[in-house]
Order: sequence, then C-alpha cells, then structure tokens
Amino acid sequence: MLGFRNYWYPACQSGELKRRPLSITMLGEQLAFFRRDGRAFATKDECPHRGTPLSMGKDEFPGTNSVACRYHGWVWDLEDGRCLAALTDGPDSPVVGRVRVRTYPVEERKGIVWVWMGNEAPVPVEDDVPRLLARDDTKIRVVKGLTYGNWRAHAENIGYGHALMLHRDSIWVLTRQNPAFMRNFTPYVSEDVDGEWVADRSEEIVRQAEYPGLGTWPTLKGKPWRYRKGGRLSTDLFGLKAFISLGLPGINRVLNFPLRGGIYYEFYVPVDEDHYRLWQITCTWPKNPLDAVWQALRYYAWGRPAGVRRFIQQDKVMVRHSSDFAKRQGSYRPSPKIYRPDAFHALWQDYANRTARGVGLDVTSTNGTRSEAEAEPAEETHAL
Amino acid sequence: MLGFRNYWYPACQSGELKRRPLSITMLGEQLAFFRRDGRAFATKDECPHRGTPLSMGKDEFPGTNSVACRYHGWVWDLEDGRCLAALTDGPDSPVVGRVRVRTYPVEERKGIVWVWMGNEAPVPVEDDVPRLLARDDTKIRVVKGLTYGNWRAHAENIGYGHALMLHRDSIWVLTRQNPAFMRNFTPYVSEDVDGEWVADRSEEIVRQAEYPGLGTWPTLKGKPWRYRKGGRLSTDLFGLKAFISLGLPGINRVLNFPLRGGIYYEFYVPVDEDHYRLWQITCTWPKNPLDAVWQALRYYAWGRPAGVRRFIQQDKVMVRHSSDFAKRQGSYRPSPKIYRPDAFHALWQDYANRTARGVGLDVTSTNGTRSEAEAEPAEETHAL
Amino acid sequence: MLGFRNYWYPACQSGELKRRPLSITMLGEQLAFFRRDGRAFATKDECPHRGTPLSMGKDEFPGTNSVACRYHGWVWDLEDGRCLAALTDGPDSPVVGRVRVRTYPVEERKGIVWVWMGNEAPVPVEDDVPRLLARDDTKIRVVKGLTYGNWRAHAENIGYGHALMLHRDSIWVLTRQNPAFMRNFTPYVSEDVDGEWVADRSEEIVRQAEYPGLGTWPTLKGKPWRYRKGGRLSTDLFGLKAFISLGLPGINRVLNFPLRGGIYYEFYVPVDEDHYRLWQITCTWPKNPLDAVWQALRYYAWGRPAGVRRFIQQDKVMVRHSSDFAKRQGSYRPSPKIYRPDAFHALWQDYANRTARGVGLDVTSTNGTRSEAEAEPAEETHAL
Repeated sequence: MLGFRNYWYPACQSGELKRRPLSITMLGEQLAFFRRDGRAFATKDECPHRGTPLSMGKDEFPGTNSVACRYHGWVWDLEDGRCLAALTDGPDSPVVGRVRVRTYPVEERKGIVWVWMGNEAPVPVEDDVPRLLARDDTKIRVVKGLTYGNWRAHAENIGYGHALMLHRDSIWVLTRQNPAFMRNFTPYVSEDVDGEWVADRSEEIVRQAEYPGLGTWPTLKGKPWRYRKGGRLSTDLFGLKAFISLGLPGINRVLNFPLRGGIYYEFYVPVDEDHYRLWQITCTWPKNPLDAVWQALRYYAWGRPAGVRRFIQQDKVMVRHSSDFAKRQGSYRPSPKIYRPDAFHALWQDYANRTARGVGLDVTSTNGTRSEAEAEPAEETHAL
Repeated sequence: MLGFRNYWYPACQSGELKRRPLSITMLGEQLAFFRRDGRAFATKDECPHRGTPLSMGKDEFPGTNSVACRYHGWVWDLEDGRCLAALTDGPDSPVVGRVRVRTYPVEERKGIVWVWMGNEAPVPVEDDVPRLLARDDTKIRVVKGLTYGNWRAHAENIGYGHALMLHRDSIWVLTRQNPAFMRNFTPYVSEDVDGEWVADRSEEIVRQAEYPGLGTWPTLKGKPWRYRKGGRLSTDLFGLKAFISLGLPGINRVLNFPLRGGIYYEFYVPVDEDHYRLWQITCTWPKNPLDAVWQALRYYAWGRPAGVRRFIQQDKVMVRHSSDFAKRQGSYRPSPKIYRPDAFHALWQDYANRTARGVGLDVTSTNGTRSEAEAEPAEETHAL
Repeated sequence: MLGFRNYWYPACQSGELKRRPLSITMLGEQLAFFRRDGRAFATKDECPHRGTPLSMGKDEFPGTNSVACRYHGWVWDLEDGRCLAALTDGPDSPVVGRVRVRTYPVEERKGIVWVWMGNEAPVPVEDDVPRLLARDDTKIRVVKGLTYGNWRAHAENIGYGHALMLHRDSIWVLTRQNPAFMRNFTPYVSEDVDGEWVADRSEEIVRQAEYPGLGTWPTLKGKPWRYRKGGRLSTDLFGLKAFISLGLPGINRVLNFPLRGGIYYEFYVPVDEDHYRLWQITCTWPKNPLDAVWQALRYYAWGRPAGVRRFIQQDKVMVRHSSDFAKRQGSYRPSPKIYRPDAFHALWQDYANRTARGVGLDVTSTNGTRSEAEAEPAEETHAL
C-alpha cells in the first residue's frame, strides 16, 4: 500500500483543469480528470474495453457529462461511470449499460481539485483540508512537483533534528545563529484550531555546547552576518503552539515559513513506491490591498526562491537517500539506531498507524503491510 | 513465444545489406546478415566461442562464403555454419569442423531479404509473400521502424471499429464524412487472388445515428470541407472484396490506401515482448512511365506524409497503450468487455491459433503459451 | 561475489582526494573517502542513522579525524568508526559510543589510494602492489574509467589469441606484420621480480600459414607500410620473460606497451555485476631529466592516444559482448567450445580459484559462488 487511502488528496489546481483532460498518477493509480460545465470529474484513466487512456478521449456530446474514448468511441458517464454508448457499434450496442469504469468523488476548495480514492464512503472534504488553509481570507500560493523517494521518508524528515544541522547553511537562515539542540524535547499529539497534529515542545533551546573530544559547536567566529539569535520563531499565529507539526494523511505545517506571519503546508501525495508529489502551499492573510502587494513582493523575491525552493531542496536530497536506505533496510523504523529527537518520528508512526482512517497501511514497513510484530506499540524502541 | 516461427519474415531491404554485415533482432533472437558475391546469408549473431557478434566479423577470405570472428579469428561457413578454421590456433586447430553456428535460410524477393526462423523445414518463400506484392509489375515503397508494443496488439487494432473513431480527425480523411457504424457486420475467412485473409463484410454503412441520451453522431455542422461521403472505398482492385484484411503470420492489407488504386501492406515482425518492427509497404501498378512519375509525386507529397506517417501514427499510440493494458490484464482477449466489431479480433485470434503452421503460440495470451482453457474454441465469448 | 575481497585495490588517485570527500563504489559497496591533515580515510558511505551518504558530510571539527553527517549531525571517528557525538541531541546524547560505522584500511603508494575491503586482517600493501610499479624510480601515468562488463571477462580477454586477430588492425600495430599463431603454446605460473603471474611461452611464432579450403593468412599484399616483423616484443625488461601476464586479484601486465621500455598494468576493480573500473597504468624509468621529457612526449603524442586509448578500446568492446554472453550462458568457462590458446584462461581460472586469499569466489561462475561441480580441477576441459 502506498498511502492512507481514505483521505482527500490534492490532485491538481483548478486552473490547470480546463477543456483538455489531465492524466495524474496518485496512490499507484492513473486517474483522468475532466471538466464539464465548470464541474470537475475523475475516472480511472483506462477504458475498460482496450485499456487506452480516457484522458485522451473526446467530448463528443457537449452539454452532457460524458467522454468518448478516442480509440473505439465507447462513451462513459463521468458521474457514475456507466457506458452510455459504443458509437462505432450503433445505438443498439449490447454493451450499453453493461460495463462501468471506476469514477472518484471530486471536490474543489481554495482553487485545488481534491479527490477521494478510498474504499469507504467519502468524509466531507472540510474534514481533510486544514482549516486555516481553507479560510476564505487565506491567500494561498502553490508550488508542486514530482519528487523522487517515498512520501514516508519525507514525513519522517520532519522534526527539529535535521533543521539544526541540514538547514544550517541554507541562505534562508543566512542572518541567524542556528542553535545546537533542544533540551528535554517532547513530542505530543495536539488538537488546535487547524486540526489534529503531531507537534513538539522542549524546555530549553541550547545555542552552543561543548562536545567532549571535539570542541564547541556551533562556532560563529568569522560569520558576523549571523547576528540574529535563532531558535523558535514566534508562534503567536492563530494561537498555534508548535513551530513544526505533522498531520494525516501526510501534511507538514510550519509557522512563519517562508514568510513571517505566514503558514506553510507540505502535502505528500504518494505516486508510486519511488515517487511522491510534493505540494508546497504558502498561506498569508493580507490585511489590505497594499499589504497584499507587499506580501506578494516578499514571496516572489525572497520566500519562494530562498525558502520554498532552495531550503526545501536540501530536504529533497536527503529524502531521496533515506528512501533508498529504507528500501535497503526493509523498514522505515530507524530503530535501534535512533536518538532522542527521533521520538517525533516514532510518535508519528505510532499515531498514524493507530488513528488513520481505514486499516492496512503500516507506515514503518517498506511494503506498507502490517505485520504482527510491527503492529505492537513502538514505545520500547524510542530509547536506544 | 513471440510470434509464429514457421513463416518467412522480412528482415531488411536488399539495398541495406552491402559489404558491411547487419545485426537485426527478430522473434527474440539477434541475427547477423551478410552478403557474399551478391548472395545474402544469415547466422545467429553470436560466435559460439566467446559470444561476440559475428556481424562485427571480417571477410578474411574473399571469394569464400565465410566470416571470421573479429575477436579470435574463428572462421564460419555462412551456408552450413561449420567452423572452417580458428586462425590464431593454426591450420591444425582441433575445433575445425567440430563446432557449428546456427544459420538461417534467406531469400530475396522484391528488394526485400526474407528469413526463415522456424523449427520446421522452410516452405517456398512464394507461399508467404502476398501474391499481389510479389508480382513483377508491382512497384513497392517501404517505410519501416522499430515500434513500442506487442505485435499482437497491432494485429488486433485492425478492423473497422477503430477506423471510424480514431482516424476520424486524421488529415488523410480531411474531406470525407466518416460514417457512424456498420450494420450486421460479419467477419469471415476469405481466399482471394492474394492469399488467405481474415476479412469482413456488412449489410449497411450507417452515416449518422441518434444515440439515446446523448444526441446525433457524427455531426458535420461547421465542417463544410467534409463534403465527400465516406464509407467503403472502391474495392474493385484485382477483384478483392474486403477493404481491410489480416493474414498470417501478422500482415494487414488495406485497399486504396494511402493512394487510390494502390494496396498497402503492414507486416508486424516481433522483436521482443515490448517491441515489433512495423513494415509499411505501399504497392502501386503504374500503367506507363508518366503514370509512374505521377504516382511517385502523389506518394511523396500526400500518401506518405498524410497516410503512411500521420494516419498510422494514431494507431501506434493506441497499440502502445493496448499492449500495456494486455500486460496488466494478462491476456490479449478483450472478453468479457467486447462489442460487436470485436468479432473481427475474435475470429482472427481463433483463425491464427487454429491454422498457423507449427504449434505452441497462443495469440490471446500475453506470454504466448497455450493453456488448456485458452486452447478451446472462442465462439462463446464473441458476444457480450 | 564480485571479486576477491582480501586484496588491496586502487580506489582513487591521491591528488583527487582533497578537502571534498569522494564517494566511490567498489566490489558492490559504496565507500566514502576523506582526507584529514594529509591522511586518507575510508568508511562505508552510509550514515547508520538514516542512511544518507557520509561523503556529503561536513568537517565540523577541523583538527580531529571526524566527519559530521550533514543530515542530523552525527559525528563519526574516521579511524575506528565510533559515533563521537550527535550534535543536534546535545553532548549527553545516549547514542555516543554506542553506534559504529564500518571503516576500511587505507594506504597511499605511488600517488594512489589503496583500500582493503576484505573480511580478514589486511596484509602489507607492499604484498599487493606489483613490485616494479612500486619502485621509487618508477614514473607512472594513470588513465581510469568505469567500464561496462564484468571484470572477469576482461581478465579472460588476456592471452595471445585475441591479440593476433582483434588488434591486427589497430593503429598501434600499423607498421608491424602481426603473425598468425603460436606453435606449442604453454601457459604456466611464474614467480618473477614483480610477483607471481600466470604467463605463457611457445615454441615458435608462425608468421603466415595455409588454411585448408580458405587460403593463406595473413596476407600482406597491398600493405607495404607493414614492413616490420611482428611477434614477441623484446622481453629483456628487468629479466621478465612473458610478454603478457595475469596476476591476482585481477591485474594484467604487458611489457613494452604502449612504449618500448615501459611496462603497462591494467587493474580490474569490480564495481557491480555489470561494471568494473579499468585502471591503465603506464610505467617508465627515465634515465635523466631529458629522457623524462622525451618519454612524456612519446606517451602523450603516441602511447596514450594510440595504445592506452584506441588499442584497449578494441578490448573493451569485446569484453562488453563476452560479459553479456557469460550471463546468457550462466558461466565464464567457455568449455566445451575452447581452442588451444584458451589454455591460458583455463589455467588462470584454476590458479585464481586455488590460490586466491579467502574463499568463496569462483571466477568461472556468473554469480561468483562455488558449486561442487565447478570446484573440481579444470584440467580435463582444457582440450576440446
């Protein structure tokens, strides 16, 4: 299994889906997306007759919610998937009403087409779109692309451990003194105004430490431009507490990134065993038209190139390597070689396996199936 | 199994085989082709000693029908495959006459090198080259290339069903009103002046029809350039009746394509599981030298670009997709999701499995082997 | 198994390993190479925590022999592989001293970094670097590159059989009349000033012969530029006797190639099943500075382009094909289709299997494991 199926996932942006259908592979299946009279539809992108893609089909009967397969002219109802006609066999073709193609529930919110690929009845899409993202006054900006690796490796990238080392030399933190580590770091599951998330807290941010046999770290000498004290960024946005959080079915939320006062969401949409589609959505709340212009300027001149692109590129390189590592190891659980910040990953894996809708996926195993041994609570393995 | 082996297949054009040997992969094997004193020869393209390609070999003894492997100088008789010498081991080398490379019967007809890769004794090449193509007064023009997909998917593309939908928007039918469907369509096996073929007939060509819940199809409004009534093209060529036919081991014949008065043959030569070589041979019968010039003009200015290239490109895209579909399904038999025009495919599969020389290949199964269940007659599954 | 593991192999040139670590795949494993205070180190190129490459790591504590993983800041001792710190978990991280990454012994000789990947304790590197190559007064020049094929196919390329046929038309032998074959050719194991080698001798070099049914070979008519008698080149270098020799773990030595008075070594370093790294080392012994300039001129103007590059390129093409052949056959043993010059290969396979340090690899089998049948002496199969 490639991901938790009983969730709404972003498929494409509304503006991308026009008269020309789209073919999008998600959760291991190839889907075709159509727009008819302003409404979006999704089917399996395979004509049941000869298997050619319905996304290559033609709108032979404008005004109806149908598509005609380009190969032999079988016409499909985009709503319920029934075969409405087989044009080249005449109106009395015996296949009419006797064959069906799979269709998928589709909703549009915030300029994004969301699709439900679950085996259970869909929940309201409002349950799955983070509530702050979904607000009417939220201005969103999207960057997305196919990325090498397994989405679980990116989900498990989240946490402060990598941020303090990997992103230390990113241009986005050019002027900040990144701290060394967090003392008494504790992950927890939090319910906030935006939904339910795995979040973290710690007692103290240690800016510099002495490592036996090695020396002081980090040293800032020779880097006068790092004049600002780093650490937790202000988290007064909407009363949220955790700087970085992780939610189901695979959403990362970061406060004040890539712009102060904004919220950044990453959606990890599984494509196949070795690829996922990374959605990077930056949310801002402009107070007035002038503020909107100012935020756009900050986003395009700084936030997108330095944050959304280059900062996250560092993560993507590591996700590529740790995906390959998980395949070599046969597991996404890093035990027994974990250290204290990995408690975040362990809690996420445990939380996801316990609470996700539907059953069957185990985020810790490489093939996604749940074995007896893996299904047990993971607490014992948190500590080395 | 990749194809019916006990047939003559086109390998290359005579003009391509000069002093430099050719390496051509067909029916899953790599063959080397040679020319010696005007005569063509074929061997397995692998020296039995170290496996290096004999097509890289040298003609060290001009005047003899032999080739010397470039690696260690083992010399092979191109006629019977015997080892004639191992040059770097001296004239008394013990391998002489003790090792053999496989050779293949080769014939040249109409400027094409035909090869027999069967396990039975070869039939006369005249049995396998379509008789109209083989006539002395036939002018042939060849386009060929390696194509993605399984040859069986291209063979099963043949039939009127796809033509009326897929090719509807091809520039080759720009001025014609393509009809909607054929009433009482019946495929049959026909013996004609050109050999034995699976062909079809129908009672009526229906130009336009009303499809319940959808509307009239096709509509021609706004397309005044489609002024000509389409339908069956004249089939008075050599008394042939069927516009499109399919013969063993995988040959498609179309009348009046791409030029009126001409015949078009497609040979599907299996290469490996995912590729075949598509030979597109256009035949014309010029009445005099001026007519020959006129036909050449029509071919190069219209028939080849619009017909041989662009029209058939539409098929190649669909063959790619339906080949992949057959692999996913594990079968080339589209049952139970077939419609009436698929009777042509079903008859072809049944005919090919029953009458092809040799045994073992089942054109309906993806791996080509014949299972008990599949070996039974297919009539019951023709209808939905 | 990919090669004999209990040997020193060349990894890179000393000059290539500077401040920036290198990632090199050898014998199926990815290694990271580092330089600290002039000294070279090697580790498995995989952080035990999340599997990201240590060759992407940072030298966070200059002056210590350590590397910090770029992902989460785990610091590793390059000498013994101990975890020295987990920076983002603070100085008291419980993983310190509890996890270890594999390190490999490294030595530098003659400007080359040699690495020991064996499962036994390393022998002195002097045992494995050919002694003439290792001499202080030897001037070496290196060309190396990743090559398609299995190293064993290149080792088995060695011998006079291929040279007299394959290299006959190389520009490097432009002016020489290559002979036809060697009479009473006998391979043997030789211990000389340079180490232990599989070498060969023969009673007579036959320059031309008459092959029944084919004719005289080689003929030199029309090639007046081939005025020099070929045959064994002078072998008076350091008292060595064999023109071409083959040593463990996969080293080819050729006298007077590509320059008269020089010695040429080829090291075959296994990379994966389908690739090896070919090291081509030309040794010369200049008598004085002026001679050094003259030899450099001969090397760069003639020896490297005509010998090291083009002459050996002919071998590489054949090795590619015979590697593929061995995979198809499932064996590197060419029996029963061998001829007398193959006695060299048979002796090499037998010698390597019998005397190489460590156990387990069988050079004749494609997967490298030793079966009961293959482990028996190979003498019976030398003759056809």
